[in-house]
Amino acid sequence: MSESLLSSRNLAFELYEVLDAEGLTQRERFAEHSRETFDAAIDTARSIAENLFAPHNRKNDEHEPEYVDGAAVLIPEVKPAVDAFLEAGFLNATREFEVGGMQLPNLLSQACFAHFQSANAATTSYPFLTMGAANLIEAFGSPEQKQRFLQPMIDGRFFGTMALTEPHAGSSLSDIRTRAEPAADGTYRLKGNKIFISGGDHPLSENIVHMVLAKLPDAPAGVKGISLFIVPKFLVKDDGSLGERNDVVLAGLFHKMGWRGTTSTALNFGDNSNCVAYLVGKPHQGLSYMFQMMNEARIGVGMGAVMLGYAGYLYSLDYARQRPQGRLPDGKDPTSSQVAIIEHADVRRMLLTQKAYVEGSFDLGLYAARLFDDTLTLETEAERRSALELLDLLTPIVKSWPSEFCLKANELAIQILGGHGYTRDYPVEQYYRDNRLNPIHEGTHGIQSLDLLGRKVSMNGGAALKQLLKLIHGTCQRAEAHASLTALREPLEQLLARLQTVTLALLGDLMSGKVNEGLANSALYLKVFGHTVIGWRWLEQAICAEQGLTRLNNSEGNPADADFYQGKLQAARFFLTWEVPACQHDLDLLEGRDPTCLAMQDAWF
Amino acid sequence: MSESLLSSRNLAFELYEVLDAEGLTQRERFAEHSRETFDAAIDTARSIAENLFAPHNRKNDEHEPEYVDGAAVLIPEVKPAVDAFLEAGFLNATREFEVGGMQLPNLLSQACFAHFQSANAATTSYPFLTMGAANLIEAFGSPEQKQRFLQPMIDGRFFGTMALTEPHAGSSLSDIRTRAEPAADGTYRLKGNKIFISGGDHPLSENIVHMVLAKLPDAPAGVKGISLFIVPKFLVKDDGSLGERNDVVLAGLFHKMGWRGTTSTALNFGDNSNCVAYLVGKPHQGLSYMFQMMNEARIGVGMGAVMLGYAGYLYSLDYARQRPQGRLPDGKDPTSSQVAIIEHADVRRMLLTQKAYVEGSFDLGLYAARLFDDTLTLETEAERRSALELLDLLTPIVKSWPSEFCLKANELAIQILGGHGYTRDYPVEQYYRDNRLNPIHEGTHGIQSLDLLGRKVSMNGGAALKQLLKLIHGTCQRAEAHASLTALREPLEQLLARLQTVTLALLGDLMSGKVNEGLANSALYLKVFGHTVIGWRWLEQAICAEQGLTRLNNSEGNPADADFYQGKLQAARFFLTWEVPACQHDLDLLEGRDPTCLAMQDAWF
Repeated sequence: MSESLLSSRNLAFELYEVLDAEGLTQRERFAEHSRETFDAAIDTARSIAENLFAPHNRKNDEHEPEYVDGAAVLIPEVKPAVDAFLEAGFLNATREFEVGGMQLPNLLSQACFAHFQSANAATTSYPFLTMGAANLIEAFGSPEQKQRFLQPMIDGRFFGTMALTEPHAGSSLSDIRTRAEPAADGTYRLKGNKIFISGGDHPLSENIVHMVLAKLPDAPAGVKGISLFIVPKFLVKDDGSLGERNDVVLAGLFHKMGWRGTTSTALNFGDNSNCVAYLVGKPHQGLSYMFQMMNEARIGVGMGAVMLGYAGYLYSLDYARQRPQGRLPDGKDPTSSQVAIIEHADVRRMLLTQKAYVEGSFDLGLYAARLFDDTLTLETEAERRSALELLDLLTPIVKSWPSEFCLKANELAIQILGGHGYTRDYPVEQYYRDNRLNPIHEGTHGIQSLDLLGRKVSMNGGAALKQLLKLIHGTCQRAEAHASLTALREPLEQLLARLQTVTLALLGDLMSGKVNEGLANSALYLKVFGHTVIGWRWLEQAICAEQGLTRLNNSEGNPADADFYQGKLQAARFFLTWEVPACQHDLDLLEGRDPTCLAMQDAWF
Repeated sequence: MSESLLSSRNLAFELYEVLDAEGLTQRERFAEHSRETFDAAIDTARSIAENLFAPHNRKNDEHEPEYVDGAAVLIPEVKPAVDAFLEAGFLNATREFEVGGMQLPNLLSQACFAHFQSANAATTSYPFLTMGAANLIEAFGSPEQKQRFLQPMIDGRFFGTMALTEPHAGSSLSDIRTRAEPAADGTYRLKGNKIFISGGDHPLSENIVHMVLAKLPDAPAGVKGISLFIVPKFLVKDDGSLGERNDVVLAGLFHKMGWRGTTSTALNFGDNSNCVAYLVGKPHQGLSYMFQMMNEARIGVGMGAVMLGYAGYLYSLDYARQRPQGRLPDGKDPTSSQVAIIEHADVRRMLLTQKAYVEGSFDLGLYAARLFDDTLTLETEAERRSALELLDLLTPIVKSWPSEFCLKANELAIQILGGHGYTRDYPVEQYYRDNRLNPIHEGTHGIQSLDLLGRKVSMNGGAALKQLLKLIHGTCQRAEAHASLTALREPLEQLLARLQTVTLALLGDLMSGKVNEGLANSALYLKVFGHTVIGWRWLEQAICAEQGLTRLNNSEGNPADADFYQGKLQAARFFLTWEVPACQHDLDLLEGRDPTCLAMQDAWF
């Protein structure tokens, strides 16, 4: 079997031909790095993912965590895998050398992490959630909180969670009911119930640090009255040793369709009125803190969706090459040998579709990760702010597009395997079940669409949108140098021109008070915007592939790469000529403010 | 909770307003029936489905059949449910009164059966497979075979299966290796292995009659050398009592992603060289016999996909009405109450999409069932043949369209429930897993597309296609009487005109030997053809809804129906203005013989 987690050749293409990872080593923060150190980190990630994560992916699914005596019990393979991840330093891949990190660019950290996400989505969740919680304390915690809670997380002794959702408040966080009462000692006492808390209990670490949203007694109503608290499972003494068990209780586990290896927990805070909590930052700022860290989490979710798609794509590709079945339409002699199913045009369509979805969004996810590096390491404040604006704008796409289309890729992977793909003897059905979570958590598809159209495209006078449009135009201009790309470029240009007009029109609605009407078809807007962005990324990849072919014509590079570049061009052609033009009709609907969905009445269903 | 299996009002609309079920009672075969007997049968079906099928649907999933001592063991709830189904006569709903049947139209039999498919896909499979096997023997078996095997099936004592697939031969049946050697007594001895045989073992009946495809020693190669055999699990003596166990062994069970309650078996025939088989009909005609019965099976599979979609739609609709979450975009006061999520435009989009997919294909499935009645009961041979041609043409759509789009509906049902929908505490995730089988079995999506474009549209000089186009034009003409339907009719007319041209062009390719090229994008053709057909059915429904509103305006009928008719119009509007025009781009690709998928090379992936 060929590579199972991702294509190394494609990763190298992304890092060194499309996204100029080596250019990052010119920046002071990454000056001690080189292509060699990058590749060494990737090799380590691949090795641990293949040897310790992938082998128990199915077992994680078949033996989901159990609730035993108030605790969650996992299969024994999870801890050694996570320990190896920690030992190799991936939890702190982007942290400074001086605190024990690898000081890698986020781009490289995501590239390494992608291997784990492909190998075993469930086991990978535990360090992923810990990274998110740690980043939150690092950004907004007090020095003492960092000492007490962050340092042990960096050391791999404490793990973390994000505790937002409540039984009656998921998408609508302004309605949370968890309360925090100030105590005499400057800490708080929390009371409330949270659900769907991933990693809310497990035996992988000494302690679990819950980052909990709750309301103070004097909180204003709504999102402006939400504060952020640290709630450790075990209290931590001044000397760093563990104290008593805090008053946070595992009330139960949720049983999911997929992603079963990750505990999804119901947590009760303060059943005995003694749940000690520590306020992070200022009162009532909790949601804005969360949102400032949301880009990372959402890139992570998007990349998770990509990697499940990637795993399914590679598996079905390998299967299609091995499995003989039927003959070509023009060769029906029943005494001839059967052909491998990859020879059938429709199987190629299903593989090419997967490739277009998976490699298109893989590129976007890594592009966003590199942009994240820009937000931290570009030279001027203005450049950094500008990079952050662009990242803010792209985040809903980075999160939602792969959640939808790499799930579709998984559906096609099953189809290629036929009846076998529907059995649990093959991995593709699990990828499909696992991936179905991604359009739901970290902000549903609908929430992402409202974030994009209702907030992101108009922020700062549309500065980010203008920036993006300029970048896409720039790519189109560079594509003009390649006559072979004309048929790929034109559909993108046609989409882009109209997207611009339609966006202005919709923003006009929003500003003139027609909010319900303007946002009614936001999901359609999200789709068109996403296809524009992915189409852009495919055109970028196509330009890089053309450049690669030119080098080969000049006898530079590895001649075996010709096939790789042709594959890139064909996938770009597929996406830009099959998928992008189909969005014109979506634009018709958006342009006409189609009222069909909004006008539908409850009583008519 | 409102109705959970299907909407009775919608079923009545289909039967009595769209498909003129009462008209069938004018035909001699159905002369003893009336709307009252039809409704009584439906009431019985609903009652048994609700009380005996639905309650163990989840348990079927959680406790899949086990392999114990060479036999499959099911949960105890399955048998009483199936027994009630048999007792009520649904196995023989369409058979003559004189053999103990209800002599119902196929339309009514499907309408009854739909309730069971919605309530519990897995348990319903056992009688479904038995009906298929029985019909095969009825059509092609000898009088003695009918006496020995069919009558006990009609009596509910024997169940049946269809045993086609082998480990190396699924879509490519011409490559099956199971052999049948003639024995001295006129029977045959079978040897071979079959996989994915649904219902291949279970404790629900005294005996299981396997309908097995195998090759005789003198068989020509390919599909023209396949014969059909009866292989009973237990031999049947001349007096009808059971004899020895036949040499067919349950080798194992497959463990599937969904549809878990139905045993999917590996069967070994003739391990001890003593598997007694009976040839059905003539040698080498087996596959053509199978294909002649395929319409029924494929309508059944399509309706199964519809009903899983229907169950998810109704569940998510009910949930959306109950679940408060968030506020409308123009009402963000956080102290105001949350609204039910059905108030959100994007949730309405997801519900309306489900309604359009589910009710559109429900109509088509019932339309096909009525057409099946026409093939048997229209007055002249020419009319019956003509109905059969149309049914043959529509069958790939009836099977594949709901398999794809009602699966999509199930995906949306999960999304509406959010995190809850992803847990096994709610039924929608099971519907999604169950429905994922439908694009695979009874001919994959790809096979259906080749059947449509490579065989059905051109058969008998395109007679069926011409008939269909004429019917759709007729509907469009009748729609012209309603000004309100102009915006719905025009997109269909635009699609239709081009579909005709494109079909001729593609058939030209096929006839001029460019077979690989002509069939390369057959999946796209299937999609456009399917959308045209479903668009047509929605326009029919819209006309009937307009007529209903007209009656209400004339003070005829139930005023409460106004909402129902408005909902029909809105769903028709959604499908015809959101979905149908999007196919224009697919037609561009088909018209241009887009070579992207065909040109993709193995080495480029």
